[in-house]
Amino acid sequence: MPTPLTDAQITEALTQLPYWSHQNNRLTRDYKFADFNEALGFIVRVGLLAEQHNHHPEIFNVYSTVNISLNTHDADGKVTHKDIDLANAIQKLG
Amino acid sequence: MPTPLTDAQITEALTQLPYWSHQNNRLTRDYKFADFNEALGFIVRVGLLAEQHNHHPEIFNVYSTVNISLNTHDADGKVTHKDIDLANAIQKLG
Amino acid sequence: MPTPLTDAQITEALTQLPYWSHQNNRLTRDYKFADFNEALGFIVRVGLLAEQHNHHPEIFNVYSTVNISLNTHDADGKVTHKDIDLANAIQKLG
Amino acid sequence: MPTPLTDAQITEALTQLPYWSHQNNRLTRDYKFADFNEALGFIVRVGLLAEQHNHHPEIFNVYSTVNISLNTHDADGKVTHKDIDLANAIQKLG
Repeated sequence: MPTPLTDAQITEALTQLPYWSHQNNRLTRDYKFADFNEALGFIVRVGLLAEQHNHHPEIFNVYSTVNISLNTHDADGKVTHKDIDLANAIQKLG
Repeated sequence: MPTPLTDAQITEALTQLPYWSHQNNRLTRDYKFADFNEALGFIVRVGLLAEQHNHHPEIFNVYSTVNISLNTHDADGKVTHKDIDLANAIQKLG
Repeated sequence: MPTPLTDAQITEALTQLPYWSHQNNRLTRDYKFADFNEALGFIVRVGLLAEQHNHHPEIFNVYSTVNISLNTHDADGKVTHKDIDLANAIQKLG
Repeated sequence: MPTPLTDAQITEALTQLPYWSHQNNRLTRDYKFADFNEALGFIVRVGLLAEQHNHHPEIFNVYSTVNISLNTHDADGKVTHKDIDLANAIQKLG
């Protein structure tokens, strides 16, 4: 079972994750795309990463906007290294 | 600009849309799939319908669950025939 | 029923479509991506355009490569304005 | 490096894979869907399985048809257990 990270550990990890923030026990980022076409392409790419990591974000989409939120169910819904790892993989998508 | 439907019109339309409900000025349905794989396949299919209809839902996904919510921005965020039409198309996906 | 374009018309259209060529009565382009993740994101985006245009390419994918080929079934499998239009839309994806 | 399966091993595996055949050193299956919408949903689901298995098929799509072909690059393009495993996973999609 993954261990929740401390606030200091999360703050440290966020230095490598511009645009992400730590809110309500989640890592979260809002994306804004040109249109729905680009947004859905992104969602599919996040989905592929999620299956590879065997860890799945909350994904919320309205037209050209996508919000990704990450926490770990098996760690009382807190942020763990699994969330940091997936956020870093998503970050590399651009 | 599409006209908001009356409550009676929405109630009538919902007779053809089992599992959908009218809440907070939206048509909404919760889907539960076997896993994330099936959920993402569904999201992509909803996305294709949305582009064909030039009308886009709110899509919220957590692992095997998907919530679809529909309203019409150009009608003060109320439910119009555009929402009913897209809900009917999504309904045909199964 | 769309009319096949002449070779001169196709040559003219291709001046706006770098990387595309006219082979075996098709417009065709090979894409090379960083990995499968990027390739599948692209395929989904092409799919959304195809549904909007109500015109569908042949799509061939192996890992990070995607080949798109376009012709018009209703015009004896020749290239028509429908193929040029869709190629231009796909071109805008990058 | 995965070892190519013998013809007898492949024939045995195919008893659990109705609709699949062994042609030109590949496992291959043709799918026919109702429309492009259903076909693309399927392709995305195959893509998710491919990333999980870290093994990728050839995917060929024209409108409502999809051909999936599997072989193993690292085994001289022959069929290995990796192909059988992925075919079985795809088979479960329906």
